[in-house]
Amino acid sequence: MARPYNRLDKDNAVVLLVDHQAGLLSLVRDFTPDEFKNNVLALADIARFFQLPTILTTSFEKGPNGPLVPELKAMFPDAPYIPRPGQINAWDNADFVSAIKATGRRQLIIAGVVTDVCVAFPTLSALAEGFEVFVVTDASGTFNPVVREAALNRMSQAGAQLMNWFAVGCELHRDWRNDVEGFGGLLGSHLPAYANLMQSYAASQG
Amino acid sequence: MARPYNRLDKDNAVVLLVDHQAGLLSLVRDFTPDEFKNNVLALADIARFFQLPTILTTSFEKGPNGPLVPELKAMFPDAPYIPRPGQINAWDNADFVSAIKATGRRQLIIAGVVTDVCVAFPTLSALAEGFEVFVVTDASGTFNPVVREAALNRMSQAGAQLMNWFAVGCELHRDWRNDVEGFGGLLGSHLPAYANLMQSYAASQG
Amino acid sequence: MARPYNRLDKDNAVVLLVDHQAGLLSLVRDFTPDEFKNNVLALADIARFFQLPTILTTSFEKGPNGPLVPELKAMFPDAPYIPRPGQINAWDNADFVSAIKATGRRQLIIAGVVTDVCVAFPTLSALAEGFEVFVVTDASGTFNPVVREAALNRMSQAGAQLMNWFAVGCELHRDWRNDVEGFGGLLGSHLPAYANLMQSYAASQG
Amino acid sequence: MARPYNRLDKDNAVVLLVDHQAGLLSLVRDFTPDEFKNNVLALADIARFFQLPTILTTSFEKGPNGPLVPELKAMFPDAPYIPRPGQINAWDNADFVSAIKATGRRQLIIAGVVTDVCVAFPTLSALAEGFEVFVVTDASGTFNPVVREAALNRMSQAGAQLMNWFAVGCELHRDWRNDVEGFGGLLGSHLPAYANLMQSYAASQG
Amino acid sequence: MARPYNRLDKDNAVVLLVDHQAGLLSLVRDFTPDEFKNNVLALADIARFFQLPTILTTSFEKGPNGPLVPELKAMFPDAPYIPRPGQINAWDNADFVSAIKATGRRQLIIAGVVTDVCVAFPTLSALAEGFEVFVVTDASGTFNPVVREAALNRMSQAGAQLMNWFAVGCELHRDWRNDVEGFGGLLGSHLPAYANLMQSYAASQG
Amino acid sequence: MARPYNRLDKDNAVVLLVDHQAGLLSLVRDFTPDEFKNNVLALADIARFFQLPTILTTSFEKGPNGPLVPELKAMFPDAPYIPRPGQINAWDNADFVSAIKATGRRQLIIAGVVTDVCVAFPTLSALAEGFEVFVVTDASGTFNPVVREAALNRMSQAGAQLMNWFAVGCELHRDWRNDVEGFGGLLGSHLPAYANLMQSYAASQG
Amino acid sequence: MARPYNRLDKDNAVVLLVDHQAGLLSLVRDFTPDEFKNNVLALADIARFFQLPTILTTSFEKGPNGPLVPELKAMFPDAPYIPRPGQINAWDNADFVSAIKATGRRQLIIAGVVTDVCVAFPTLSALAEGFEVFVVTDASGTFNPVVREAALNRMSQAGAQLMNWFAVGCELHRDWRNDVEGFGGLLGSHLPAYANLMQSYAASQG
Amino acid sequence: MARPYNRLDKDNAVVLLVDHQAGLLSLVRDFTPDEFKNNVLALADIARFFQLPTILTTSFEKGPNGPLVPELKAMFPDAPYIPRPGQINAWDNADFVSAIKATGRRQLIIAGVVTDVCVAFPTLSALAEGFEVFVVTDASGTFNPVVREAALNRMSQAGAQLMNWFAVGCELHRDWRNDVEGFGGLLGSHLPAYANLMQSYAASQG
Repeated sequence: MARPYNRLDKDNAVVLLVDHQAGLLSLVRDFTPDEFKNNVLALADIARFFQLPTILTTSFEKGPNGPLVPELKAMFPDAPYIPRPGQINAWDNADFVSAIKATGRRQLIIAGVVTDVCVAFPTLSALAEGFEVFVVTDASGTFNPVVREAALNRMSQAGAQLMNWFAVGCELHRDWRNDVEGFGGLLGSHLPAYANLMQSYAASQG
Repeated sequence: MARPYNRLDKDNAVVLLVDHQAGLLSLVRDFTPDEFKNNVLALADIARFFQLPTILTTSFEKGPNGPLVPELKAMFPDAPYIPRPGQINAWDNADFVSAIKATGRRQLIIAGVVTDVCVAFPTLSALAEGFEVFVVTDASGTFNPVVREAALNRMSQAGAQLMNWFAVGCELHRDWRNDVEGFGGLLGSHLPAYANLMQSYAASQG
Repeated sequence: MARPYNRLDKDNAVVLLVDHQAGLLSLVRDFTPDEFKNNVLALADIARFFQLPTILTTSFEKGPNGPLVPELKAMFPDAPYIPRPGQINAWDNADFVSAIKATGRRQLIIAGVVTDVCVAFPTLSALAEGFEVFVVTDASGTFNPVVREAALNRMSQAGAQLMNWFAVGCELHRDWRNDVEGFGGLLGSHLPAYANLMQSYAASQG
Repeated sequence: MARPYNRLDKDNAVVLLVDHQAGLLSLVRDFTPDEFKNNVLALADIARFFQLPTILTTSFEKGPNGPLVPELKAMFPDAPYIPRPGQINAWDNADFVSAIKATGRRQLIIAGVVTDVCVAFPTLSALAEGFEVFVVTDASGTFNPVVREAALNRMSQAGAQLMNWFAVGCELHRDWRNDVEGFGGLLGSHLPAYANLMQSYAASQG
Repeated sequence: MARPYNRLDKDNAVVLLVDHQAGLLSLVRDFTPDEFKNNVLALADIARFFQLPTILTTSFEKGPNGPLVPELKAMFPDAPYIPRPGQINAWDNADFVSAIKATGRRQLIIAGVVTDVCVAFPTLSALAEGFEVFVVTDASGTFNPVVREAALNRMSQAGAQLMNWFAVGCELHRDWRNDVEGFGGLLGSHLPAYANLMQSYAASQG
Repeated sequence: MARPYNRLDKDNAVVLLVDHQAGLLSLVRDFTPDEFKNNVLALADIARFFQLPTILTTSFEKGPNGPLVPELKAMFPDAPYIPRPGQINAWDNADFVSAIKATGRRQLIIAGVVTDVCVAFPTLSALAEGFEVFVVTDASGTFNPVVREAALNRMSQAGAQLMNWFAVGCELHRDWRNDVEGFGGLLGSHLPAYANLMQSYAASQG
Repeated sequence: MARPYNRLDKDNAVVLLVDHQAGLLSLVRDFTPDEFKNNVLALADIARFFQLPTILTTSFEKGPNGPLVPELKAMFPDAPYIPRPGQINAWDNADFVSAIKATGRRQLIIAGVVTDVCVAFPTLSALAEGFEVFVVTDASGTFNPVVREAALNRMSQAGAQLMNWFAVGCELHRDWRNDVEGFGGLLGSHLPAYANLMQSYAASQG
Repeated sequence: MARPYNRLDKDNAVVLLVDHQAGLLSLVRDFTPDEFKNNVLALADIARFFQLPTILTTSFEKGPNGPLVPELKAMFPDAPYIPRPGQINAWDNADFVSAIKATGRRQLIIAGVVTDVCVAFPTLSALAEGFEVFVVTDASGTFNPVVREAALNRMSQAGAQLMNWFAVGCELHRDWRNDVEGFGGLLGSHLPAYANLMQSYAASQG
């Protein structure tokens, strides 16, 4: 009953960004384009801030699905980048799985488009192999809320933990004293409401 | 903990379409008529595309419930078709169950109207007999979201997996290379947003 | 894994209607007054149609909570009627529990106002004593959807099955041939959309 | 600027119920079936309570549109009843218009299915002929809120007054002292929340 | 075309609070109880803050409609208080109208329950007599948003100006320098989000 | 006051389809892709059914905006087709305006993407030149409902009439007897709920 | 299967209020400011009413997060108050945990801002140490419903019970006879709809 | 009837940004923080792109309302900047009005926080003086949609035109050929869905 709480650990976590491609993003209708773009880039910033190994994969970039969104490409110039020749479940791609295993890490932070396929399938596969999987629900998008609910239920029942980018960042950071400036800046640049607080505070100290 | 992920397998799956009748469809209010019709026909196209055995059943077609929607009848001319003389739970109908068992398959993909009865009852019965059941939540409709949530919770807690037609198709297909044209065509005809991507891409290559 | 599906059985079920009082109903805001009244009366009609033992209980009728809604009082003139002198959880009232146990039945169909208290507390108590509990979510009301979600989650995680009145009726009836007229009439009087189907059909046969 | 407020006057008003037919009602998706049925019957009760001349019309009852809902037929056995042989705009039917003109009244209270056609067209025609038109928005239904908004905007801009059944009843009644019992009973039978107040009050006086 | 903007003027405005009674409030479903109570009391505070003449009226307090909410009674002990013996439209009550006319003011700020009757009817009557009417939409409640929309459209088309309590307060105050403390306190006590700003600011100055 | 009701007249109306391009459609978020596609094609079918002159225009098809949706191109092979070299407001394009004027018609039925620009601008221009303009709100899409509301308000206040495709079709048809089969088929193919009625009716006659 | 129902027990429960700070509250967008403030203060009143040990903690009050909301500070002048120097998860702060353990109680009632971090992290830590945790979902706020759903799912799957303040109060109180006046007053001051019932009842007894 | 369509003209328009202050932004609840920030900055970019005279004003920056958001300050270093000493309606501030009049322009494009006060009051004042006013509804925010609707109705009825930032930009630009690169870049940086189209197109040309 009292099982330990295995928290996200910045020395044991890897980030998987699956199929955030310019064409596929037009299928995402459970978030507005503004908020979804912000959520994805916030997760990417977290990956960089904590220097987590990050793995990118895409499906048919040369075609209607379109290219990986350029911001992501630019943020992770040296990350493993696996264009899948056809496998829908990224876990069926040996390069993708071995890139993950090469990190030696057991906590997978995953987000992608669309939630019910590109996120759900590798999540279920990874859980079956004993990985801990943390699904970033607000950086994963799909057709509508009914589809999202079904997909999250399926992953949750299989053992995945459902999170959001802000909680991922905070669970990794653990203590503000590790870097007040840096982490505050990260939050401020993706949470306008938090940026407002910082600006008001700064002005009041002026 | 690390149980295997038993995926949908096109050699082990059967599709059950329960009571998609013209009259009963007027009870469906958790989807708009446009999107619900599209979802049901998309699932039917998937059944045909993967040549899955498909079983149709109806309740009192001669009466207010109305006939099976004609598109479904036309798509599966040779499928077992079981008009139930009164059983509400299709699993109580011996012909229905033996049609399923005759396929020798253990994975049931089910959708119907209404979710809380025509889908939930046979799902619970089938789970109790050890079948794997995959409920297609967006091709199953009912009175309102509160009813749907209760029904999906009941099925999920009993072991059913909740999915949507798009994920069902992708999990069965596994690899685009198995048939890029065919599967792309299927998606394009039921996802206008994907069709738009294909048209824009084609035009850009023209 | 393959546990039997213990269905609602009209020879093993009892209906508990908890605190549907005129005053308390004004607290219900997760359903409109029209639909909530209809749902509660539909469940009551089901109880009568299947001649299920039904137990009524109220909290402080002489006071702001107001009297039991008169339709319910009129429908069950001989049912055990337990005005609780103060216990919030009806299960803490010995008369209520012994009225249940006197029926010898093990399946409790429960609905009430408010969901998070008057339904949730006796549900959790009954589950702890080994009863099967079926919560009728659409005949139970509370302050808002956030509260409802929490309450349903708590009950579901403790083992309750979440249902709606229509599914309760159908699971009890099992086969239309048991009484086509009677059950059709019941549905028609609480589902205007179904009544429309019956009227159109009758007219077409005229 | 200070034009007189021409109120609804029970000696100058006529009620027009257009195409509330069993089949067409399944097209109404901007209200739930429960609340829409209640709203239509409430308006009908108001027509009877104030003994307003009431005119019924339908479109193709022998066919998919289905019969007039039987409650309305039963409530107005002697009312002019005009089955239109084909005219979509009821105002194009001479019998309908002359039934209205025969009353000598100038205030038209109109409701129907669907709002954007069966209500809007005769409303616009009647306004053009100088009638005052009061559209009962909650006893008129259509496909979805976007359609409703457009239709109400069109009618409002042409001079129609938008009302709801409760306001119609109150504007006609003017003073509770004209009939406290009767009007209270009417409200209580269509407003469960008001019925609750009356029951609580009665009990407190018990 | 360039007509003058007749602003709310604290020397020309009177506040009318119509039928905010404990029973009738249970009919209000287009606002949550928390926010509606807050909005009504905020408007009342504004009336007091600017020492506007305020007129209270009720309908059948001895009965299901219930008493005027006690906070309002307490806030305006000396205000004209007109229990109407039966008139639904308060403007039909001579005492109510003469109380208004006795103030000599021409700008009526009105709120009440329910919007479509108790607010709309006197609004239309007053406009017809040449008063300027400002309807406080968020301190007026009714059955649902469809009803509210119709009522607001009707009043707006007849010349009423639609406002909210915050805008009413600000238009009356005109310049913060008239009373920074007092007006800030009023806002803070009804806008938790503004209170938070004040607390954060005060702490930062600490 | 009693101005005539100038109805849509199939001998005086022309249909303008503005910028329904594959890329731009991904910007439409106030309708789901399924329903929007259906609405646009329904309007196109109406144009053809009534043999209305129809004019197509696009903006930068060779580029991100993408090609005109192919179904529209196929349906109107001989229609004037004006690819605008840069004008945002189609009315600024002389070819577009002269194509309209060449028809000699004064009633413009307009739809497009996005509502606030491609529909609103030519609508305002045409109104200023004395055309009657009927905006088909459900075949016009944009970023979100807030934007839509502003755009519809602007057009309505300038004199445009807001309609939906179903009402356009019915106002043009006037009398079912003009073609029962044809018009019924048109409705059935775009209104699944109506198709259900027709199927149930046909079955009941079988 | 029949595990006992461990109810909230006023002799075994402690209340944890985490980071309800004036700045952070501006991040809460899944409740309106009015209702959220009311919910938090209602929970605080419950803590006082049942004299539950209550522990307050904050994060960086001197800075953008702002001070603890002053009402809470005033209500619990003698409660342990732990300003955390940097730990995000309050359970990482030794003072916080030892304040809890010093009470000797095993039932934690927790609420805070934001749900997914300040509530979820200590909840998961406490569950792992064998505490029973009751999350007050309506006194905990966060960015949006998608984030809330993920956080509640995570906590529920780890064993937390989801509740609302009203249910917490009722489960602690158990029997109205323990204090009718006091508990009724508490409810009335936070549930306007319940206050209305009490006022109507009192008036009717007048 | 056929009045000319006075379009926004880049040689006759001025932009007014009213009270977009860090504290006040926390009051805005009718948009999410992400989308509101994006909308405000998009409008600011438009002002710069078309080199429109732009006027900034604030209310009590030294206090809870907080400083003007720094991005705006940075974008318009030379713009008239009027910190109002107390006037709530900016039009009551002589410096503000004379800054407008100094431009010699008659078209006012206005946005601010909150819509019902800081936008509505100067809008009504300016209309009364004969200015054309274009309210940018999606760059103006307030407490909730009910308040927004009332405010927009009030301004629209007084003659203001309701627009959104995208339509403002397009109406000013008139013809893409004036600057394809520049205007496309502006749109792409504020419309992620449009940026996706551009990226997909560019990739397809690669």
